Amino acid sequence: MSTQSDIRAAVIGATGYTGAELLRLLHGHPRFSIGYVAGHSTAGEPIAQVLPSFLGILDGVVEPFDAEAIAERADVAFCALPHGASAPSVDALRQKGLVVFDLSADFRLADLDVYAEWYGEHGAPHRHPERVYGLVELNREAIASADLVAVPGCYPTAAILALAPILEAGLAKPAGIVIDAKSGVSGAGRKPSPKTHLPEAAEGIRAYKVGSHRHTPEIDQELGRAAGTPLKVLFTPHLVPMTRGILITAYADAAEGATVESLTAAARERYAGSPSVVVLDPGQAPDTLWIRGSNRVHLGYALDQRSGKVIAMGTVDNLVKGAAGQAIQAANVRFDLPEGMGLEQPAAWP
Amino acid sequence: MSTQSDIRAAVIGATGYTGAELLRLLHGHPRFSIGYVAGHSTAGEPIAQVLPSFLGILDGVVEPFDAEAIAERADVAFCALPHGASAPSVDALRQKGLVVFDLSADFRLADLDVYAEWYGEHGAPHRHPERVYGLVELNREAIASADLVAVPGCYPTAAILALAPILEAGLAKPAGIVIDAKSGVSGAGRKPSPKTHLPEAAEGIRAYKVGSHRHTPEIDQELGRAAGTPLKVLFTPHLVPMTRGILITAYADAAEGATVESLTAAARERYAGSPSVVVLDPGQAPDTLWIRGSNRVHLGYALDQRSGKVIAMGTVDNLVKGAAGQAIQAANVRFDLPEGMGLEQPAAWP
Amino acid sequence: MSTQSDIRAAVIGATGYTGAELLRLLHGHPRFSIGYVAGHSTAGEPIAQVLPSFLGILDGVVEPFDAEAIAERADVAFCALPHGASAPSVDALRQKGLVVFDLSADFRLADLDVYAEWYGEHGAPHRHPERVYGLVELNREAIASADLVAVPGCYPTAAILALAPILEAGLAKPAGIVIDAKSGVSGAGRKPSPKTHLPEAAEGIRAYKVGSHRHTPEIDQELGRAAGTPLKVLFTPHLVPMTRGILITAYADAAEGATVESLTAAARERYAGSPSVVVLDPGQAPDTLWIRGSNRVHLGYALDQRSGKVIAMGTVDNLVKGAAGQAIQAANVRFDLPEGMGLEQPAAWP
Amino acid sequence: MSTQSDIRAAVIGATGYTGAELLRLLHGHPRFSIGYVAGHSTAGEPIAQVLPSFLGILDGVVEPFDAEAIAERADVAFCALPHGASAPSVDALRQKGLVVFDLSADFRLADLDVYAEWYGEHGAPHRHPERVYGLVELNREAIASADLVAVPGCYPTAAILALAPILEAGLAKPAGIVIDAKSGVSGAGRKPSPKTHLPEAAEGIRAYKVGSHRHTPEIDQELGRAAGTPLKVLFTPHLVPMTRGILITAYADAAEGATVESLTAAARERYAGSPSVVVLDPGQAPDTLWIRGSNRVHLGYALDQRSGKVIAMGTVDNLVKGAAGQAIQAANVRFDLPEGMGLEQPAAWP
Repeated sequence: MSTQSDIRAAVIGATGYTGAELLRLLHGHPRFSIGYVAGHSTAGEPIAQVLPSFLGILDGVVEPFDAEAIAERADVAFCALPHGASAPSVDALRQKGLVVFDLSADFRLADLDVYAEWYGEHGAPHRHPERVYGLVELNREAIASADLVAVPGCYPTAAILALAPILEAGLAKPAGIVIDAKSGVSGAGRKPSPKTHLPEAAEGIRAYKVGSHRHTPEIDQELGRAAGTPLKVLFTPHLVPMTRGILITAYADAAEGATVESLTAAARERYAGSPSVVVLDPGQAPDTLWIRGSNRVHLGYALDQRSGKVIAMGTVDNLVKGAAGQAIQAANVRFDLPEGMGLEQPAAWP
Repeated sequence: MSTQSDIRAAVIGATGYTGAELLRLLHGHPRFSIGYVAGHSTAGEPIAQVLPSFLGILDGVVEPFDAEAIAERADVAFCALPHGASAPSVDALRQKGLVVFDLSADFRLADLDVYAEWYGEHGAPHRHPERVYGLVELNREAIASADLVAVPGCYPTAAILALAPILEAGLAKPAGIVIDAKSGVSGAGRKPSPKTHLPEAAEGIRAYKVGSHRHTPEIDQELGRAAGTPLKVLFTPHLVPMTRGILITAYADAAEGATVESLTAAARERYAGSPSVVVLDPGQAPDTLWIRGSNRVHLGYALDQRSGKVIAMGTVDNLVKGAAGQAIQAANVRFDLPEGMGLEQPAAWP
Repeated sequence: MSTQSDIRAAVIGATGYTGAELLRLLHGHPRFSIGYVAGHSTAGEPIAQVLPSFLGILDGVVEPFDAEAIAERADVAFCALPHGASAPSVDALRQKGLVVFDLSADFRLADLDVYAEWYGEHGAPHRHPERVYGLVELNREAIASADLVAVPGCYPTAAILALAPILEAGLAKPAGIVIDAKSGVSGAGRKPSPKTHLPEAAEGIRAYKVGSHRHTPEIDQELGRAAGTPLKVLFTPHLVPMTRGILITAYADAAEGATVESLTAAARERYAGSPSVVVLDPGQAPDTLWIRGSNRVHLGYALDQRSGKVIAMGTVDNLVKGAAGQAIQAANVRFDLPEGMGLEQPAAWP
Repeated sequence: MSTQSDIRAAVIGATGYTGAELLRLLHGHPRFSIGYVAGHSTAGEPIAQVLPSFLGILDGVVEPFDAEAIAERADVAFCALPHGASAPSVDALRQKGLVVFDLSADFRLADLDVYAEWYGEHGAPHRHPERVYGLVELNREAIASADLVAVPGCYPTAAILALAPILEAGLAKPAGIVIDAKSGVSGAGRKPSPKTHLPEAAEGIRAYKVGSHRHTPEIDQELGRAAGTPLKVLFTPHLVPMTRGILITAYADAAEGATVESLTAAARERYAGSPSVVVLDPGQAPDTLWIRGSNRVHLGYALDQRSGKVIAMGTVDNLVKGAAGQAIQAANVRFDLPEGMGLEQPAAWP
């Protein structure tokens, strides 16, 4: 699946869930080839031992992070490292001249003070100015020439895509937005923990990090941009007994002119041309199963007359459009490829 | 488990999920005995064939509904029939002098016009005046002398218990309340359908009946009472890939004096003495697994400073405190038994 | 994704689960185009309404079955109709000269008497002689020139692939083979039923059709061929609380020369060149998650010294290599395309 | 629920899953009271913080293991400690004169050499001679006077109960028995691990510890006793994507006289009087959902004419009849209480 003119990609942090998805999507992409697979704790092990879905598909061994070696074998790097740890690695790769797509939170926030408030000290603040926020449908132009793309968080992707068009169009009011989010457990990452131990996560549901989830300032930032005024959302995540998928149900006060039709039309117009976003007809509620495993986003709008509130719903696969798929969609834009290249697959439904 | 002085109970609609739970709880209750088990489509079949969890536990056969025969063998009837169909059966049993606990929606709404708007024509309007709303913690006195108790809906039980105390205490504002609800699939009942076919319900999540769920007016009614003023909630249910459990995450504007401590204290005070409701400490978020299969309710409160909103969370098992358990708790009150009798079992966790 | 030289495919029974998978795989196949989408009860409806995973991906409407019209717009037909109902439709399409891949059981069995015994009267016995059994790895030559390919059952695919090589190599004895099979619920098809209603299928496991499952004679047939002698397996299916995936654990008496290494080697040799089958190293047990959604098959072998039995394990996705993926793999062979074309995707793991 | 004449119980290792179930069942038992709750890593924490299902139900704090203190406050101890670690604690408690029910494997095996082979060095071999195997239905007499009861493993409970009667009755042959077992993830215990991390365990199934599971010699031991001759089973466990429940599907060669009726009758006769075991009618296959959360066991038998094999199926809840429930059932026998006291609850179905 590779030719001499392929764009060579490195996947850093390849053996977590997001890394696995990056490998899967790059492997199937007609114009990217995988030049380097880096992991930390798994360095030295065969890729297919760490990621058995690649048995018989990917040979090769996980290598340690080595910016020099990576620069020799790759033109672009996709970094799926933990927050805080990512910035220095991103910086090292940028110094070598690679285009970098960072899937951590380290470059998502425009304001370093806000980053400090929610995440702590930044690992490479000097690198920060060149960051570009990587939500493709809303930032294509900047991404097209970016060398450092901050791939958005999974929850923010769903929430921002659902709410931005109707805020931009002035159909929903920016104050008092509530985002009730539901996610599958893979969003927590590959590291085992009591909360994600199957007997304590399956067959039940619960909220977590109530009022304190780090995706909150990211959502504020982008929706504030869409609304043209600062705003603060109330964001509540919940852990759902399933592996993949995010559904957000957002509530906003309707503004003048908001009808189910105008809301739907605003989103359809905003996302015309996107190879990812589909806006459902009024009356249809998105279902994570319909986009699971794919780079699709389903959005749906309702208007509750009794309360005068807009209900905006959005589904993404947290590992695909919520992470790896978005990164590749952004890379398609950056490298002047058809935006949906390598991301056409529908969900494997049921 | 029965003696001569037992209160003889009939279970009507015994072979659906709520009926099964009524049988289970009555079977284990020291003071109720099961005098009659009625079903419609399953009449004639052994109970344990229709409900295999009772193999070796309950002999007997499902019998057809016969108000005369029921009146001879029972003092109290628990009716788990579908909405609309229940009222005439309830009426027939009341005519025979039985105390009736109705688990349908037919007598939950105080206003027959509202019932007509959401459910259709009432099947026994003349019987309606004697109805008493059966949310035990909030209506004990009336239940104690009621002959017709309308057992609340599952979602309303969770939502009302979570919000009533803070509305009564004036810590949350009644306008603009949003209730985002999540339920396991057993809430849909025993009848198979495409939406509840495992391949289309498992491993994913989705909202349904957006802005149109029939539990909405019931929540309005009881929260309006708590707030001392009419209100309209926005209620959005979601179908979660699990069998049992409801979690509601409710959002209300905080009023003066609202702190996490005062919210928690208001609820603890309101429910002091309840054998069912437990209010968690600030910082803990309820998890449906902790109450699954039991008559417990877990409530938790948070205050989001950024938005000035109260987050009220509540979990119930939709079939127990959300239906059969609540019915029996109400029956304990009505028959002057310890309120938690037969309902002490914690969740079988994990 | 289509050009003038594309092979035009019709999908019959397109709106069940197997049909949906056929559409997904054909849509992504570089050399097949979808020329006709036929359904019965859904005829007239937009494809993406019936199969929402195709929203924004497939336009078009489900059409009724019309052999004449199909013959004008397709060269090959993939029929995913129910057993019994399929044969007449297959016959009608063959009469029009289409190459047909039948995903029903109607042409899998070589012996019509055996078919009658397990399935009933055959719907097109005159068509039967031209049938070719479509398990690609074991029947490539015949498939390459077949006009009517019977795509194997899901369970048989896993069982036969796991056992055939070691029977052929004389490393396992043909008598007394036990196949304990576990499947996700999508194998039951799209039609709702009590047994597949989520509350009665999730969170639990059970055997079904014990000793009476129709896949049994098919497994006998192909393993008998591999062993060079008639045999009868004991096949027990189980319904697992998940949507996709089959795992078979087969037990056979070890023959002389059987070691974990020789068993593994025999399978690796037999399937060398397959774009689908991967034989795991000794000590690794296949996991359905590693192949879920893909056309991969994972096989693994163990030898229990204490009992002298071989344990052969195999995983497939029941809808992909167990149905639609196998059909397309066979079609690749029949139309002289690279065998794994359009089927390269690894599992979307986790 | 306690009186002066209560039997005071200590629960050691109370904060794992088996410990939690012991607390739940003892709490609801009319004649046992909980005198001491011991944990190691959780010592000092409120019980209800570690086990939130007990919020509002159990006050008190987890205490460290202190044999002296335990002996003052308890007459009987239920030890749910890990294998190896348990024997010394059991020994310490026995020295203080407590009756001990050990839920570890340390005293299950009669032969210390076999223990050494499968588990390693025994922690208190001098204590071993007084051990009694605690499978109540098959060892009542010995349990009635035992001071050290080894509660059987979860898988062995299901396998032995299913096979013992038909081996005793000579209806199945002892050689070549295959036991294919399927278990929910709670059987792995409370400690998180990659294999039990929800994204890698949910929605899929796999065998594990193939040919090497430690429950194997325990099954050999008890079935050998039932058959009156040594035997070696082939036991293959599988991890199922659910929390609770075990299903075993066992295959044995039928002996003369074996019919579905005689098999069923043999089991019914053997277990007459058991408050736990129910033998299903021929044609019914047990389902873990029907016994989930309860101390029930469902057994079912089939006869495959084609292969001449008996199929014996059995379901238990791994934490109840497979652990805590069996311990309490044995304690009922030991303390001369009705055998099913405190264990009457049916499954909370669905």
